[in-house]
Amino acid sequence: MTQVMVPSLLDRIKGLAKSWLDVAGSAKGCEALNFAPDLSDDDLACLRGQMQACLDGKGGEVSARARAAALGREYLSLSTEGRRRFLKLAADEFGPDSHAVDQAMEALRQAPADKRALAEQRLRQVLEPPRLTLLTQFNALPEGVKFLVDMRAELAVLAKGDAGLRALEADLKGLLAAWFDVGFLELRRLTWASPANVLEKLIHYEAVHAIHGWDDLKNRLDSDRRLYGFFHPRMPDEPLIFVEVALVQGMSGDIHQLLDLNAPPGNPEAADTAIFYSINNAQRGLNGISFGNFLIKRVVEELTREFKSLKTFATLSPLPGFRPWLEAKLGTGEPGLLTGPEHRALAQISNGLAAKGSLKTLLADPAWIDDSHLAETLRAPLSRLAARYLAEERKGADRAIDPVAHFHLSNGARIERLNWLADTSAKGLAQSCGLMVNYLYKLDDIETNHEAYAGRGKVVISQGVKALLKG
Amino acid sequence: MTQVMVPSLLDRIKGLAKSWLDVAGSAKGCEALNFAPDLSDDDLACLRGQMQACLDGKGGEVSARARAAALGREYLSLSTEGRRRFLKLAADEFGPDSHAVDQAMEALRQAPADKRALAEQRLRQVLEPPRLTLLTQFNALPEGVKFLVDMRAELAVLAKGDAGLRALEADLKGLLAAWFDVGFLELRRLTWASPANVLEKLIHYEAVHAIHGWDDLKNRLDSDRRLYGFFHPRMPDEPLIFVEVALVQGMSGDIHQLLDLNAPPGNPEAADTAIFYSINNAQRGLNGISFGNFLIKRVVEELTREFKSLKTFATLSPLPGFRPWLEAKLGTGEPGLLTGPEHRALAQISNGLAAKGSLKTLLADPAWIDDSHLAETLRAPLSRLAARYLAEERKGADRAIDPVAHFHLSNGARIERLNWLADTSAKGLAQSCGLMVNYLYKLDDIETNHEAYAGRGKVVISQGVKALLKG
Amino acid sequence: MTQVMVPSLLDRIKGLAKSWLDVAGSAKGCEALNFAPDLSDDDLACLRGQMQACLDGKGGEVSARARAAALGREYLSLSTEGRRRFLKLAADEFGPDSHAVDQAMEALRQAPADKRALAEQRLRQVLEPPRLTLLTQFNALPEGVKFLVDMRAELAVLAKGDAGLRALEADLKGLLAAWFDVGFLELRRLTWASPANVLEKLIHYEAVHAIHGWDDLKNRLDSDRRLYGFFHPRMPDEPLIFVEVALVQGMSGDIHQLLDLNAPPGNPEAADTAIFYSINNAQRGLNGISFGNFLIKRVVEELTREFKSLKTFATLSPLPGFRPWLEAKLGTGEPGLLTGPEHRALAQISNGLAAKGSLKTLLADPAWIDDSHLAETLRAPLSRLAARYLAEERKGADRAIDPVAHFHLSNGARIERLNWLADTSAKGLAQSCGLMVNYLYKLDDIETNHEAYAGRGKVVISQGVKALLKG
Amino acid sequence: MTQVMVPSLLDRIKGLAKSWLDVAGSAKGCEALNFAPDLSDDDLACLRGQMQACLDGKGGEVSARARAAALGREYLSLSTEGRRRFLKLAADEFGPDSHAVDQAMEALRQAPADKRALAEQRLRQVLEPPRLTLLTQFNALPEGVKFLVDMRAELAVLAKGDAGLRALEADLKGLLAAWFDVGFLELRRLTWASPANVLEKLIHYEAVHAIHGWDDLKNRLDSDRRLYGFFHPRMPDEPLIFVEVALVQGMSGDIHQLLDLNAPPGNPEAADTAIFYSINNAQRGLNGISFGNFLIKRVVEELTREFKSLKTFATLSPLPGFRPWLEAKLGTGEPGLLTGPEHRALAQISNGLAAKGSLKTLLADPAWIDDSHLAETLRAPLSRLAARYLAEERKGADRAIDPVAHFHLSNGARIERLNWLADTSAKGLAQSCGLMVNYLYKLDDIETNHEAYAGRGKVVISQGVKALLKG
Repeated sequence: MTQVMVPSLLDRIKGLAKSWLDVAGSAKGCEALNFAPDLSDDDLACLRGQMQACLDGKGGEVSARARAAALGREYLSLSTEGRRRFLKLAADEFGPDSHAVDQAMEALRQAPADKRALAEQRLRQVLEPPRLTLLTQFNALPEGVKFLVDMRAELAVLAKGDAGLRALEADLKGLLAAWFDVGFLELRRLTWASPANVLEKLIHYEAVHAIHGWDDLKNRLDSDRRLYGFFHPRMPDEPLIFVEVALVQGMSGDIHQLLDLNAPPGNPEAADTAIFYSINNAQRGLNGISFGNFLIKRVVEELTREFKSLKTFATLSPLPGFRPWLEAKLGTGEPGLLTGPEHRALAQISNGLAAKGSLKTLLADPAWIDDSHLAETLRAPLSRLAARYLAEERKGADRAIDPVAHFHLSNGARIERLNWLADTSAKGLAQSCGLMVNYLYKLDDIETNHEAYAGRGKVVISQGVKALLKG
Repeated sequence: MTQVMVPSLLDRIKGLAKSWLDVAGSAKGCEALNFAPDLSDDDLACLRGQMQACLDGKGGEVSARARAAALGREYLSLSTEGRRRFLKLAADEFGPDSHAVDQAMEALRQAPADKRALAEQRLRQVLEPPRLTLLTQFNALPEGVKFLVDMRAELAVLAKGDAGLRALEADLKGLLAAWFDVGFLELRRLTWASPANVLEKLIHYEAVHAIHGWDDLKNRLDSDRRLYGFFHPRMPDEPLIFVEVALVQGMSGDIHQLLDLNAPPGNPEAADTAIFYSINNAQRGLNGISFGNFLIKRVVEELTREFKSLKTFATLSPLPGFRPWLEAKLGTGEPGLLTGPEHRALAQISNGLAAKGSLKTLLADPAWIDDSHLAETLRAPLSRLAARYLAEERKGADRAIDPVAHFHLSNGARIERLNWLADTSAKGLAQSCGLMVNYLYKLDDIETNHEAYAGRGKVVISQGVKALLKG
Repeated sequence: MTQVMVPSLLDRIKGLAKSWLDVAGSAKGCEALNFAPDLSDDDLACLRGQMQACLDGKGGEVSARARAAALGREYLSLSTEGRRRFLKLAADEFGPDSHAVDQAMEALRQAPADKRALAEQRLRQVLEPPRLTLLTQFNALPEGVKFLVDMRAELAVLAKGDAGLRALEADLKGLLAAWFDVGFLELRRLTWASPANVLEKLIHYEAVHAIHGWDDLKNRLDSDRRLYGFFHPRMPDEPLIFVEVALVQGMSGDIHQLLDLNAPPGNPEAADTAIFYSINNAQRGLNGISFGNFLIKRVVEELTREFKSLKTFATLSPLPGFRPWLEAKLGTGEPGLLTGPEHRALAQISNGLAAKGSLKTLLADPAWIDDSHLAETLRAPLSRLAARYLAEERKGADRAIDPVAHFHLSNGARIERLNWLADTSAKGLAQSCGLMVNYLYKLDDIETNHEAYAGRGKVVISQGVKALLKG
Repeated sequence: MTQVMVPSLLDRIKGLAKSWLDVAGSAKGCEALNFAPDLSDDDLACLRGQMQACLDGKGGEVSARARAAALGREYLSLSTEGRRRFLKLAADEFGPDSHAVDQAMEALRQAPADKRALAEQRLRQVLEPPRLTLLTQFNALPEGVKFLVDMRAELAVLAKGDAGLRALEADLKGLLAAWFDVGFLELRRLTWASPANVLEKLIHYEAVHAIHGWDDLKNRLDSDRRLYGFFHPRMPDEPLIFVEVALVQGMSGDIHQLLDLNAPPGNPEAADTAIFYSINNAQRGLNGISFGNFLIKRVVEELTREFKSLKTFATLSPLPGFRPWLEAKLGTGEPGLLTGPEHRALAQISNGLAAKGSLKTLLADPAWIDDSHLAETLRAPLSRLAARYLAEERKGADRAIDPVAHFHLSNGARIERLNWLADTSAKGLAQSCGLMVNYLYKLDDIETNHEAYAGRGKVVISQGVKALLKG
């Protein structure tokens, strides 16, 4: 497997051709910056002055942007501690003007009904912190948008337990949410003719079923596959989210078949089913700003247009929290977790084993997968429990406990089929006991399913899954 | 002159190929919309329901966007009164939750110092009105960004005297300011090889020196000219602001020469001066979101790169408020407005005239331009007064009274030269008494000039203009 | 009407950025060229030397190309006489080596059967004249392909009566035929969003129904129209041939309706018929290298893909030689040209006229079109004679006498319908007595129709036209 | 190392979207083709009919092309023997019309002087074989140009000893030479942002210094490297020739340093030297149609424009025939091949060896490279002999015996420096005894050097190489 080293943003920004900022680079004082990695107190004082100069628009707006860009470059060369101090400075010293806020609150309190909207609007403006302007000015960097996305990813870690940094993080989220409105995103199909530097990032970002080098990648871009991602016009080399699709006959229930490098490509014109077998969010800095729902529907539309014979759109998904949930249940010894017949079957199978038929012990050794008799015995209880885990277990009142299930159910899919021994990789066993699930996107039912789940937490399942639940 | 009819946005949106929204167009209830142009009360009730459904995300986010797009199409087909009612509904009924605002204000008031940032942030979130979400959802329209820009232009008119609509307009401005951050704009050079539908808009939007049809336009794109504009990636056919540049030898002082269709093109490689002879903001809906400063500096950079021999960057600009200002002064009869010698010279010239040498009367008849002796006599007093108007007259404490002067002085230019009989068109006489002015952009002085003007209202002028002021 | 002045090739080549040729511009001696417009004898001697140096590859291939490019620039600045002498020199002095040709002919004569192919191949190579290499080298000019196309257009005129120049013209045709193989051409749809400099050329090249300025052009690019052209990758701004299509309901029989600027656009989705109402070859230098057949079929395919409801593909075409043919017939007084009833009807109509019912005299005054009774009386005989002209008159054994008819019949179309008063413009009356014809392209019959016409000169006509012929 | 499997042309052509040919695919009879891989006699008869139909333009030109495309697809599915028979049929049965050729020869013989040019032209036309039209028609295939290039590569092998096939191969070469005129080629820089399917082909085609997978490739596209290729507009994914360049300080003399994956990238702005370290022709089917000369000069120009500090342009090249030449010399025992001192030095070194100081024996064991004393002793004689081999050995009268030397000397370079132990890979030892040579491209001398070598076979060498020659 080729190891993919994506060049750091700092390298890329440094490597870029000199930009128009350099012409405006007269921005005095910026050249002198040469901070210690951890930011000394003197550095902080200087930084404070530079931030203030950015906000004052000293030398004009163009110079202010140039100055902000210089600060941005400096930020990238700092240590984690230096970055924390940099952000803390922005968070704490460039917040809203308290006095103005108090005045605007007072004005709002006294506003007559027909002026209240305006008073609210003004309070909102006064609350807009100068640090937000500063963040916006970083957009002047050659890869300014990526810079801010990455900054938010760092901030999410640094802000733990620090109210000021959490406020800054929330500011940044608001800014990014406006910029990354789905209306600005471009759906792009990636193929083997796409730029290598973009394809390389798929290898880097794929977290569901790791891509093992360029041959594996090429296989996933073959004629019976499709790969789509959303991109932002100012981050053209960076997928925000991407989905991998296989065009097949019948609903796939085995991920190994789909990823087999030696399997000949199928005929996409003859396919009746599109299987979404991997969906990845690529930018941690965009957490909480969601596009997955849009992506799936756009891709369904693209596929429908290209292939007239496609009838079924479904996923082949892991159950990432199933095994941990099951272990916890087994730990608490919930009565009735296994049915009587299941108990008996397990007891029999494990006569020769030390664990005396404990499901927990049986699963502890991943070799169970190689013992076909044992595996067959485990099939019924694990399938039934997986169905229960997906369809009945809740986080809070009405949210499916499994995050992948929650995502697809929110989007209006239904739980269609559980597939036994569908992913027998180490990860597949550790997370999902080897099971995978198909979520079905039936266009006519999407709105109804969504409303049922979003409004009442009702999970829509197929007859087959219902049968499983009954055991 | 060809009359240019730019197709309305509604036509364009209707004309566009069916988008992905149609797939999601299952959004129930949308098809039924068929509002009266002025919006009946029943329509308003239905509209209220649809807006609420958009905000509730009924049927999922994709459906909500589809529903918003349907509302947007409906909006475009309304009359002015219908649109006012549409916007008023959004403004008044989809504001922030008053109760939540009051609570958040209370929480802020009681927040300890180290939690204040977070409390402010939360108050700001609570103040974010649902109508802003609705505006954002219109981005789903095929030309959603242009839709919102145009909506703001309309809102600016409709909001006069209506606090609710003014708040909505302010919301929209905030949204557009984020989306149109200069970091997202693309500088494009337009040439005769650019798309006709974009070039057509230059004819439409040029407001300084009207473009008289396609031949005139082609002449302004000749080999010794440059035309640059900023564009937004989601409004690729719409210039936001554009500047027309002539590459010449020596600083131009006559707009007629520059626009002469019969003049042979000069050799741009031999030019030492770039004259910015027309700058136009094209989108009224982006008022108050400024890019002019950035545009000029980006263009200076582009030109510097392309033509090594360019040494001087200057404008050839009108004085749009000079004549009105002068008339006002003449009306109030300010003593000492004219010097003694000027008085005497005018008195002589006008012996045969009824007006007895009144500057006011002389100017009233635009035929003065054709009487060379009269014109020569007017030169000295008008030039001196124009210099005073530009360099000394103030709006408030420290802002030049002339809007064009204010723009260039803010950008760091200096007032370089006044040009007599530089624009003798009817408009040139009516606004500027035939005068034009060169603002000089000297790269090394831009920051200092800006600081002097922005900080202290100090206007930087050349020796020549100083001499004029002294008379 | 805007007059369109397309810049000359010389201007464009001069105006282009310095090319790589200038780096290689070391090509010694080239700078010194400064020929008299008519080429003096000294110039000819110098030119001979330069051509020889090109062919010898002096200084290497790159230098030879640079030298050829310099000669090309020189050619463009010559007068017609100078160009004739330039071409004559190339034609006469850079032909094949006669001695080598004689030897190769002898070798071919003596070649055994199994070596004959090779001997032929060698003779062909020996016959390849050095002047052809020279022509090829002009491809190094920035717009070298357009240069050669235009050169051939000039050569076609100059070569009249000069065997040497005719041979050169034939060489050039062979070269261009290879380069412009239809496999290299790009079909491009032109829209109002196409580059203005390309659209301008449509105005320039349209010869069937003149385009009266940009408004007329825009109208022909409206939503219910399509305009397609073939382009060569090395002449991206120059259409080779283009076709204008209207998407309508029912087969159009009136060109004025189609070109009416005030008519609202139809709904293309509802159209059942595509009318090809103007086809223009744009490059005289490509005469005899045909793409029209390919263009029509590619466009039919594109339209079929875009609009599912299109069922009929037909032209609306002039009969450019009808009136001249008719005049000639009337001149020779062919007996039976008019039927008895036609004679009588005409005789009646013209009682009050000097011409005593002579068809010739009646047509001579174009005002006949305004006399509805007269026009109605002319309808039957002119329609019948037009049908005869199209369907029965021959040039040689089996070629339709009308060039437009020949073109469409060769392509496999059939003569579908004659349209009375379909083009009442001055040109329409002068060429076609106001008639126009629909040629119908029925996909299933194209091959058979083509074979019938190409093989046996058989013209396929509709029942309606058959009825007309019978009178 | 990743194994790169480029999909076969057949797969690509099959995989392509249905083209316009399918619309015209009415071409009757084509569907029925289903030849045996080796072509049976029946298949041949059918094929003969189809070829004739193509040439007759049966059903019109569009159908003829569709028919040719079908034959092309058929060709791709044949075995080598089938292909030979296919080509043989075209070569032998679709040659020029012998009778017409004889007549045209007779006409030429009798032509008066002023008609000779035309008679020659006509003979040339008559000699143009129908099979050439057939080849041209294959251009209708989706990747028709690549098809013909590959066909010529196959033909070069099959034609050995077959005069008919050799004639066909010559026809095809002429056609490709016209199509691949350098004026049609595009210089493209390839970077890590280029399409993966194009980059993959670099791995496939690189034959000088094999690219060991994607990491190696990425390293060769780093910021201090450049990779340029020529492309044809109709073969956009296929480099025709490409060159790899390193931007360094001082003239490189060690290929291992240049290719070291662990070396940090240099600063290209500071580089004074561009080293062309690998040039590859990628298409065997274009043998004899040369672009290398043009490529090097275009790249020099591009680099000069991008990097102002570059002063030196040189190659780092192998001596691919040195070791074989040396072995041959050693075999014939040429007296005086080694100087006396060289003999003595070798004799000493090899006291302990069986071979008694024979250069031949010493070289036979590649381990000599690891014995630093031995290597040092070999340095002087091998360097001197390599200089002699490059600068003095001739193939024929005036062509350098080394093919790489011949290429660069023809282009006007001079032999600048020999580098000892510059390529100690197995291939480097086997071909070049570990030596590499720098050819220097000095812009001012290129024409003179070319003329000296092309005209008189004079090789230009540096003082350093002169000194080596003297020993």
